[in-house]
Amino acid sequence: MRNWKESVFSDGTANFVNRPAPDLGDEVRIRVQLLSDAPVRKVFLRTLRNGTQVLFEMRRTETVGELAVYQAALTVTQPVTKYRFIFAAEDGIYYYNQQGLTRYFPEGSRDFTLLADYRRPAFVENTVFYQIFPERFSTGDTDFEDDPDNDLFLGEYPFYRWYGGRLEGVRRRIPYLKALGVNAIYLNPIFTAPSTHKYDCADYFHVDADFGGDEALAALSAELHENGMKLMLDISINHTGRKHEWFKSDELRDRFYLHDKENGGHLGWAGVPSLPVLDYTNAAVREIVYRAPDSVLRKWLQPPFSIDGWRFDVADVFGRHDEVQLADELWREVCGAIREEKPGTLIVAEDWGDCCAYEQGDAWDTAMNYYGCARPLREFYGVPDLFNMRDFTLRDMTKKLPAEAFAEQVMAHLSRIPGVFHANQFNLFDSHDIPRLHNMPGMDTELYRGAVLLLFLLPGMPSVYYGDEVLIGGGSVGDVSARWPMPWRELDALTGEKKEIFELYRTLIRLRLESPALKDGSFLFLCAKDRVISIARFSGGEILVGVVSASEKEEKIPLPLWRIGAEAPEDGPDLLGRTFVWKTDADGGAVICLPPRAAALFRCPAAKRRSCD
Amino acid sequence: MRNWKESVFSDGTANFVNRPAPDLGDEVRIRVQLLSDAPVRKVFLRTLRNGTQVLFEMRRTETVGELAVYQAALTVTQPVTKYRFIFAAEDGIYYYNQQGLTRYFPEGSRDFTLLADYRRPAFVENTVFYQIFPERFSTGDTDFEDDPDNDLFLGEYPFYRWYGGRLEGVRRRIPYLKALGVNAIYLNPIFTAPSTHKYDCADYFHVDADFGGDEALAALSAELHENGMKLMLDISINHTGRKHEWFKSDELRDRFYLHDKENGGHLGWAGVPSLPVLDYTNAAVREIVYRAPDSVLRKWLQPPFSIDGWRFDVADVFGRHDEVQLADELWREVCGAIREEKPGTLIVAEDWGDCCAYEQGDAWDTAMNYYGCARPLREFYGVPDLFNMRDFTLRDMTKKLPAEAFAEQVMAHLSRIPGVFHANQFNLFDSHDIPRLHNMPGMDTELYRGAVLLLFLLPGMPSVYYGDEVLIGGGSVGDVSARWPMPWRELDALTGEKKEIFELYRTLIRLRLESPALKDGSFLFLCAKDRVISIARFSGGEILVGVVSASEKEEKIPLPLWRIGAEAPEDGPDLLGRTFVWKTDADGGAVICLPPRAAALFRCPAAKRRSCD
Repeated sequence: MRNWKESVFSDGTANFVNRPAPDLGDEVRIRVQLLSDAPVRKVFLRTLRNGTQVLFEMRRTETVGELAVYQAALTVTQPVTKYRFIFAAEDGIYYYNQQGLTRYFPEGSRDFTLLADYRRPAFVENTVFYQIFPERFSTGDTDFEDDPDNDLFLGEYPFYRWYGGRLEGVRRRIPYLKALGVNAIYLNPIFTAPSTHKYDCADYFHVDADFGGDEALAALSAELHENGMKLMLDISINHTGRKHEWFKSDELRDRFYLHDKENGGHLGWAGVPSLPVLDYTNAAVREIVYRAPDSVLRKWLQPPFSIDGWRFDVADVFGRHDEVQLADELWREVCGAIREEKPGTLIVAEDWGDCCAYEQGDAWDTAMNYYGCARPLREFYGVPDLFNMRDFTLRDMTKKLPAEAFAEQVMAHLSRIPGVFHANQFNLFDSHDIPRLHNMPGMDTELYRGAVLLLFLLPGMPSVYYGDEVLIGGGSVGDVSARWPMPWRELDALTGEKKEIFELYRTLIRLRLESPALKDGSFLFLCAKDRVISIARFSGGEILVGVVSASEKEEKIPLPLWRIGAEAPEDGPDLLGRTFVWKTDADGGAVICLPPRAAALFRCPAAKRRSCD
Repeated sequence: MRNWKESVFSDGTANFVNRPAPDLGDEVRIRVQLLSDAPVRKVFLRTLRNGTQVLFEMRRTETVGELAVYQAALTVTQPVTKYRFIFAAEDGIYYYNQQGLTRYFPEGSRDFTLLADYRRPAFVENTVFYQIFPERFSTGDTDFEDDPDNDLFLGEYPFYRWYGGRLEGVRRRIPYLKALGVNAIYLNPIFTAPSTHKYDCADYFHVDADFGGDEALAALSAELHENGMKLMLDISINHTGRKHEWFKSDELRDRFYLHDKENGGHLGWAGVPSLPVLDYTNAAVREIVYRAPDSVLRKWLQPPFSIDGWRFDVADVFGRHDEVQLADELWREVCGAIREEKPGTLIVAEDWGDCCAYEQGDAWDTAMNYYGCARPLREFYGVPDLFNMRDFTLRDMTKKLPAEAFAEQVMAHLSRIPGVFHANQFNLFDSHDIPRLHNMPGMDTELYRGAVLLLFLLPGMPSVYYGDEVLIGGGSVGDVSARWPMPWRELDALTGEKKEIFELYRTLIRLRLESPALKDGSFLFLCAKDRVISIARFSGGEILVGVVSASEKEEKIPLPLWRIGAEAPEDGPDLLGRTFVWKTDADGGAVICLPPRAAALFRCPAAKRRSCD
């Protein structure tokens, strides 16, 4: 017996909303699905119009397998339209919003949301990012291995060691990136700065000469765009380095917070005096950073640089200074300026915590998705949560996050942002700030296949951190381990596990860019239990079902494919090239048999669709 | 065996925060309790300081029965300080905030919150409200029954029937109110207006002559204050009536929304043309309503009227007009003006939905608590949810809300507002807008005793709607049924059920005003299962445990008193005068035996408290 309470589903995708990004005045048709024979007398679409509840009775329009689809229309009259569904069931009234089905009137902050005054960057549905730490990716003309001083591959290496990466090197490797399949580059900072990471900016208006200067960026941008690829730059507008001319100048020094007498009179980011924090209560700072036509953030959006996205470093602390808390106001202004200068620019912010408040339409397009991706995903494999690593006791807690908690954390994020933001998510599990997952204790190639699959199954844009695709070295401690130079020689002749992982990334990247289900399809946990996660993605007739096991034993997992109007796939290899056994339980439900540490991705046939008209 | 995961508890009360309303710069000591023998290695207090995570290891300071109390201190450096707890347990890391205990890093919007820039009105801890619909409460000199035309007690009566209630009548009945024990009056509108309800205001600056004019209000206010009682007035600043001079004046007509050509050129509240909606894009409206020193909202706060609170009608729709959504801005301004004029004024807003966003420190002190009190409480007894009554199918759904859903809805509200707001809650189950609970089908005096007890057990201020204390008549349909004239003759000689309910209210009101546990004590569901709800309130050494059963059969309910450091009470009558049987289960836990439809309130001895220093 199916439980109708498990059958209810809707979301903000085109599967259930005919205009996911409506204009004011548009009529929007909204749908919800549930078991055809659910003991439900009526289904309502409920919205608030200028604060007043409005109910629309929904009409059954079609059936898909065991499911019925109900539909109603509402007219968008406000910038923000919230809605939920109400079911008059035999045993009482039920409500459904992004929180799920409840017997009580649920909180409004998890309602479905239509935004009439927000447009997401058009390219997010068609994008897989590749993050590059420029000093360590590629030189302009030789491989790192050509320099005999680059002996890092043998072991430890100093943090400030220079390896010679340049933008010309990135440009030279565009064919490699195309072969891998990625189509957007996120470059860590490249503006003039003394360090290898260049977060200690000395001049926001010029690309560092060591990286090739402004001309190199213009050339890289042009060639990326010629190849249909996007370019996102990284910047800290929170702080500069102490070599910045504003900081050195007596007249311009008031652009910085000068309150902290202990640190030489100015405030440093995270208490580091060499990273003086800009003072946005000074209008001149707002002017030069984002307001003026030739301000920092606008300049690089303009030709010949024409970047497609900004990634904001330490966005979580930006504008927060004890009694002066300006973050909300500043982000509205910064993001407004960017969208005014160049609509469709992607805005990605670094925030490791819960930042749903900034993903509501008037601020970021997405955070670096640590909260709803990197953190639970890494913890699922027993990697201690990054925040907790700062304490010795917590750092040693290597208990693996149960699948249930993984799903809850993912949904805690997705259920509190408008549906149109789901495809924006900048999903990652590695970055320049954290030791790479595949180098962490306890990982192996089989488990890693599952991690990569999860990265590509979550709603949003996957971001591949350079070298992950060939299991680059680096160790498991500190951010230094995440910045290993790219091993180009090895890439020339990949074998074994490295070749397998490279091909896995290639396969998933291609699929992500071709598949409607992965671009912006509906997202549903079919299973999240102990060490097994199953995720369904579907759009129109395409249905993909991923299953990831981190279990050390064989698992037989019932998958309620009926919930997504799917049938079990035919026998034969899955989309990642391995063969699995499907069985049927006593009720006729599908059961997948998973060897230890399996990762599988299936294309499932859609159940029969019948119009009720 | 106790489950340590059920033992974790903290909240924003003085039980767990030594300065629940700190100033910037204050050091605040924060505590959390859990089972003494929990398999937990370390406990941390976690906060965000300017966006950066800070962990404080907590120290065990004392034990209370089977519980250990951990403590750490943080310094308040920001207007808003969020915190949660982290437990390094044997089986992984756990987090605890107002959402409860999770195995994953929970959402920030449910973190505990300290506000340095908000002060709640001082009187809320010591207040029980009594809501009066003035036209129906009391005349100045006679009882309603003295007028032979007042034959309403015999049956139906017209909506606009006048019965002669006046402010002088309220003043005359102060001794009655004192005998009942309430100490704050919420008066429905009294400003000049043609209708009985006076939401169709013709003049915000004068009390209606039918109610006795300004002098009557000044006299009432003075006498209430002499008796230690507070006074809250009701106003719609969203709309006036069409008799308002601004609306009649050609020069002042632009103070109204004039966009809706269908309704005679102006917009009417809920589409009612006789209630023209004010246009707050017009600065003159903001000026005369709340900005000017002699503006509407300020005038009545000043002597000789000196009111203590404002209740805002239809706050849910205020400032919301399709593309122009001004609600957030207007409420910040309105509430800022009130607090500037007279700090400590109580601000109560009418909103039947989820309005946590307006209970964060910069807007209301509380909503009329329909969302977290009236709606789930009435539904628990099978009364259809008010919103759903507008649809015929939903209106007929009289399935009772399970206790689990009742608790979830209450917590969905409380878990998303700062702890300092919990005692602000304006709790009610009846008002001038809804048929009275005791007159609804299926209710009886025994069930009603439980409903009243629940009203007094929820955190916040109970509001008694006039006449509820004597089971006033009125029927069960529409708001007309909620506005029955007060039956003063009956009150002179109460007997039977009416006397019992009157005494129940008296007992609970007295207890609410005397008991630290009920004033602003910790709040915890000990049980919420099917038809039984048990709520614990405790503060310092005082522990109250309420148990309400709406079951038709006898129930034996295990109550985990160990979770609140309590022991089962001695034999003998409960605080409401009935005798119950306590038993002990196999593990030594307390079990209460409840006859059908029981309502009981116990004072429990506190378990032994031992310092760990």
